[in-house]
Amino acid sequence: MVHAPPRPPAGAPRTRINLYSDTQTRPTPAMKEAMMRAEVGDEQHGDDPTVHALCDRMAALMGKEAAMFLPSGTMCNVVAILTHCQKGDEVVAHETAHILTSEGGTHAALTGAQIMGLKGPRGMFSADDLRAAIRPRTRYTPPQRLLEVEQTANIGGGAVWPLAQLNAVAGIAHEQGWATHMDGARLMNACVAAGIAPKDMVAGYDSVWLDFTKGLGAPLGAVLCGSSEFIGAAWRWKQRLGGSMRQAGLSAAGCLHALDHHVDRLAEDHANAKALARGLAQIPGVVVEEPDTNLVFFDVKGAGIDVATLQQRLIMQGVAVSGLGGRVRACTHLDVTAPMIEEAVGLIREALAA
Amino acid sequence: MVHAPPRPPAGAPRTRINLYSDTQTRPTPAMKEAMMRAEVGDEQHGDDPTVHALCDRMAALMGKEAAMFLPSGTMCNVVAILTHCQKGDEVVAHETAHILTSEGGTHAALTGAQIMGLKGPRGMFSADDLRAAIRPRTRYTPPQRLLEVEQTANIGGGAVWPLAQLNAVAGIAHEQGWATHMDGARLMNACVAAGIAPKDMVAGYDSVWLDFTKGLGAPLGAVLCGSSEFIGAAWRWKQRLGGSMRQAGLSAAGCLHALDHHVDRLAEDHANAKALARGLAQIPGVVVEEPDTNLVFFDVKGAGIDVATLQQRLIMQGVAVSGLGGRVRACTHLDVTAPMIEEAVGLIREALAA
Amino acid sequence: MVHAPPRPPAGAPRTRINLYSDTQTRPTPAMKEAMMRAEVGDEQHGDDPTVHALCDRMAALMGKEAAMFLPSGTMCNVVAILTHCQKGDEVVAHETAHILTSEGGTHAALTGAQIMGLKGPRGMFSADDLRAAIRPRTRYTPPQRLLEVEQTANIGGGAVWPLAQLNAVAGIAHEQGWATHMDGARLMNACVAAGIAPKDMVAGYDSVWLDFTKGLGAPLGAVLCGSSEFIGAAWRWKQRLGGSMRQAGLSAAGCLHALDHHVDRLAEDHANAKALARGLAQIPGVVVEEPDTNLVFFDVKGAGIDVATLQQRLIMQGVAVSGLGGRVRACTHLDVTAPMIEEAVGLIREALAA
Amino acid sequence: MVHAPPRPPAGAPRTRINLYSDTQTRPTPAMKEAMMRAEVGDEQHGDDPTVHALCDRMAALMGKEAAMFLPSGTMCNVVAILTHCQKGDEVVAHETAHILTSEGGTHAALTGAQIMGLKGPRGMFSADDLRAAIRPRTRYTPPQRLLEVEQTANIGGGAVWPLAQLNAVAGIAHEQGWATHMDGARLMNACVAAGIAPKDMVAGYDSVWLDFTKGLGAPLGAVLCGSSEFIGAAWRWKQRLGGSMRQAGLSAAGCLHALDHHVDRLAEDHANAKALARGLAQIPGVVVEEPDTNLVFFDVKGAGIDVATLQQRLIMQGVAVSGLGGRVRACTHLDVTAPMIEEAVGLIREALAA
Repeated sequence: MVHAPPRPPAGAPRTRINLYSDTQTRPTPAMKEAMMRAEVGDEQHGDDPTVHALCDRMAALMGKEAAMFLPSGTMCNVVAILTHCQKGDEVVAHETAHILTSEGGTHAALTGAQIMGLKGPRGMFSADDLRAAIRPRTRYTPPQRLLEVEQTANIGGGAVWPLAQLNAVAGIAHEQGWATHMDGARLMNACVAAGIAPKDMVAGYDSVWLDFTKGLGAPLGAVLCGSSEFIGAAWRWKQRLGGSMRQAGLSAAGCLHALDHHVDRLAEDHANAKALARGLAQIPGVVVEEPDTNLVFFDVKGAGIDVATLQQRLIMQGVAVSGLGGRVRACTHLDVTAPMIEEAVGLIREALAA
Repeated sequence: MVHAPPRPPAGAPRTRINLYSDTQTRPTPAMKEAMMRAEVGDEQHGDDPTVHALCDRMAALMGKEAAMFLPSGTMCNVVAILTHCQKGDEVVAHETAHILTSEGGTHAALTGAQIMGLKGPRGMFSADDLRAAIRPRTRYTPPQRLLEVEQTANIGGGAVWPLAQLNAVAGIAHEQGWATHMDGARLMNACVAAGIAPKDMVAGYDSVWLDFTKGLGAPLGAVLCGSSEFIGAAWRWKQRLGGSMRQAGLSAAGCLHALDHHVDRLAEDHANAKALARGLAQIPGVVVEEPDTNLVFFDVKGAGIDVATLQQRLIMQGVAVSGLGGRVRACTHLDVTAPMIEEAVGLIREALAA
Repeated sequence: MVHAPPRPPAGAPRTRINLYSDTQTRPTPAMKEAMMRAEVGDEQHGDDPTVHALCDRMAALMGKEAAMFLPSGTMCNVVAILTHCQKGDEVVAHETAHILTSEGGTHAALTGAQIMGLKGPRGMFSADDLRAAIRPRTRYTPPQRLLEVEQTANIGGGAVWPLAQLNAVAGIAHEQGWATHMDGARLMNACVAAGIAPKDMVAGYDSVWLDFTKGLGAPLGAVLCGSSEFIGAAWRWKQRLGGSMRQAGLSAAGCLHALDHHVDRLAEDHANAKALARGLAQIPGVVVEEPDTNLVFFDVKGAGIDVATLQQRLIMQGVAVSGLGGRVRACTHLDVTAPMIEEAVGLIREALAA
Repeated sequence: MVHAPPRPPAGAPRTRINLYSDTQTRPTPAMKEAMMRAEVGDEQHGDDPTVHALCDRMAALMGKEAAMFLPSGTMCNVVAILTHCQKGDEVVAHETAHILTSEGGTHAALTGAQIMGLKGPRGMFSADDLRAAIRPRTRYTPPQRLLEVEQTANIGGGAVWPLAQLNAVAGIAHEQGWATHMDGARLMNACVAAGIAPKDMVAGYDSVWLDFTKGLGAPLGAVLCGSSEFIGAAWRWKQRLGGSMRQAGLSAAGCLHALDHHVDRLAEDHANAKALARGLAQIPGVVVEEPDTNLVFFDVKGAGIDVATLQQRLIMQGVAVSGLGGRVRACTHLDVTAPMIEEAVGLIREALAA
């Protein structure tokens, strides 16, 4: 549901303050240096030592037995659901989940799985909501097989699921004999914000993945973790989807660099997001949602302007933001500094006043 | 979500009053007589004259160009969605729709289509609900392709969609370039209850089917109607699913007999349902939903009893009812008479008092 | 690959001698009588006593634990392959198998299974052919999961697989850990021709089905047999495909009647086929394949005529035959008598001479 | 069907002469330098200038309107077949085609397409073979939709389809209304060997892709080319598969470098392959197939040794080769020099004599 960034009209300035998405970070010189030095091999044949190093490290970080390198986070979801589910199974997730709203219907298309979308504030649902969604097991009902959560919840405002709630819903799923899967596109933001170690955060989840191309700043790559049996089965689907690569250690080295250098600094992105929210809250007609992490959603209807108009005015000032479900989304990341936030608040104030 | 009927324990009487489902009607002697006299041919090769007669009659009744005979209503939904949609498309329907709750996840499994379940009272949603569900068209969103409604809405209590509302939601779908499909399992109940001709009732729908094995009392068969192009394409899927038959005219003759003799009498079923509802409303602790057609849903929580216990007590008295989502469902049909209704009310009162 | 029967032009006589297909038999008065007397129930809910009787009888006949009633033979193949295989699995069959040539690509479409087509005379392959087709098991190769044979082999000329060969290929499949499935559309023809009891004939096969609408003369129905576990899992797919029916006992009664009255008489069809082959062999320019059962394939290229022209000339004389892969196919069945065969030979001789 | 490379036992030397596969080339320092300098953007949002430059260049080279960057060659096949075909369609290819033997059944699994495997020497089939494979168009036959060829044919021995033959089979496909797709994993080897420009070589093909991770030596990437409409539709599937990437320009820069520096030099690989074949032909018991390009297949049965034993002996000498269908495959590429070839011949001779 994230639209393409607005294209600057001819004559518009270069985007200086890119709050559009943390997917748009550029690899730093140090990260590129690490990539160039990487020892590589044929990843598809299991011969790339840097990919092995990344997978071993990620498995340890997540407290799982095994891990798999893939070219994107969406492919982690695709592979995981193909591996957990059979044709006709049902996945239970929030109605704003990326797998339901933003992956083009791929899970019905490729796995043949139906997704039940639960309601609930900030992209989350409660244990009671989940219990109410359990179907009787008859020949008529779709077999429910998988619980999916998104940590942080993107359309939920970058909200962090509390650990107790994560564990409560996972517990219900396991009682029912379902598997559990976490879309951890921005998991490290959640861990840093909550001060919880990744392996504790994901302990209730049979599979989990982390994207390295968002706040972590790598150009390519995501890692899916789970049991050895799960990852073994997942390899069949990685191969079938064309997700097996060759000298992928070069990309994996960027991810290893990100683990070393770009995790703790997510706290800066969160501080910048809070500063942005505070600044926006001062602008008449703007309603801001208090950010948990690096995503700031705000509503400008009160200012008598629509999202697209605001986007166009800002892009002429070199500022990019995204529009999502009638709200504006601003995203902080490693290419966004505190002074840029201050400047952005001023430019947004002006754009709304124009 | 309809469970199997409770099996009478050993020593229980034969079921005398079967309110379990209108799917359990038995063919009448006159219907069987008509079936035996039918002229037949090889249906799969397009050579069965009685199947042709039924399809021609149904197409005329529904105001569509063409029709197709199939062995079940579920297969009508399967063929229709396979024909309207491609892998990855999204169908918009009520969250209690048969296609979402009671067909085992078949549309994700076979078509690869995702179903978005809308909320709304009595199995219906409004034009505003539907407008709010329209997704932006981007590379990320599932392409929305089909609106589906159920007339009458089974889990909605056998509710009849008002014609204006049916047309309003169909109009929005067509504006969006979607197709429209009606699950008319009990369409004739709706038409008789509302006094609206079938072809007017379904005018906004590109495809529609009618089941002959429910209130219409035939042992086998359903007919899917639509444009000649749609039915032509649907034949490919009828064949692939194994829904092509041989001397099917024998079954089709039962359906033709039902059209002649079992449509107008649905009014009796509706009167019986209303009488049942009135009777139940007198029983302390019972909350009854006012029936539009032949389905009576009631809640017995106020009587301090659960559905399964009530079912077991009644079955020992020769009365079958079904349980559905925490409520009891009683269904009237051509094997249920007014005196049976009176007797059933008394037996339910006793069972609740026991 | 069987085309639709040639339609008689206006003014053509009614077809008196229908050698087009044994699917075109009409139910006899005695069969219809049995159907009318059948005790019925709701088959989808497991409540139809006549369907139960048919399934019990078929399971015993085939020496399997359980059986399932379905509306067609194609659906037996669809349900069986959906139950045996997962997406991406490979089925090994003869390149002329019905599942590969005549079911519209349904197994790739619905199961997501690839079919490897082996070569070999008369629709059969040898143990050596099968061994040569075994793929190494790597992450790259499609997982081979199922062996499928057709007994009798339709495009193979109605040929009967010798029991030793059936068992040899099944043994190899089981060694490899594959399941085995028999398309027994005309299995009873094979059993009668070979003088082998069905349960011995199918002992090597995990699943097998029999069609009642071919030589057995029933208007509708086929029965799939296998282990209790297999049939239990298959019910999920029967439901999802819309193959569950209502008062199906009426149709099942026709099948039971066929088992009682139409099996032994298949020997007459085989005798008629042999008589037809002998007669055709006398006609200059005709090359006939010696029939094993009730299908007679012959080539008329030597007579300087193409199949379609011969079909048109014959239909003007009231005789229908089919064309299949450049050959003519004539099929004997219970509506074809010895005198008709004699007459047909004469008419074919004249048509070729014209 | 290429197995994983034999792992050197403990104490074995490092592989010095890697004839296992051209997928195992390492990026050169100059290529890495070019990758580091690349200007990048968010590829998934259409904002990566280096990806654009690569796609523009590839479209021009292949004489097509548009192109798409993907993480692997297998994904090019997956995306292309998902875009060309619908569920139940049939693809016609050689029985040794990569899509049939080496992609894990993915096209049945994901597209729902059946693949018919034609026979013919060296991975090729003739116009007559193709004509014989055309099915009649009936409701029963799978709809044939796509012709696929592999240039060069890998399991065919790296054979180069003659241009006239490529065009002849493409012409038949187009007459039938099918699309045509070329798996150009090693297309540049064919073009260099035949002295034919890529756009002439692929003129008969609606879609074609080139892999940059084989002889061209890049670490990651393949480019699929076709009409603007085709590539537009393919983007939906790229997204659904998780094949959209972020700062992919870094990888694309490696591919651009390969186009500038690693195409003409394929002639060296071909000369090395011919030298290897000549050398092997001198060894008693070895039967070598004359290579067209960079793949040398040879049979060592005459030397009384099996492929796996030869592989193990060679790996102890630091030489890797692959086994494929009972034959040995040696592959030349940019990490293999003429002196290595000479040395390898000697070591193979010794290993066979041991």
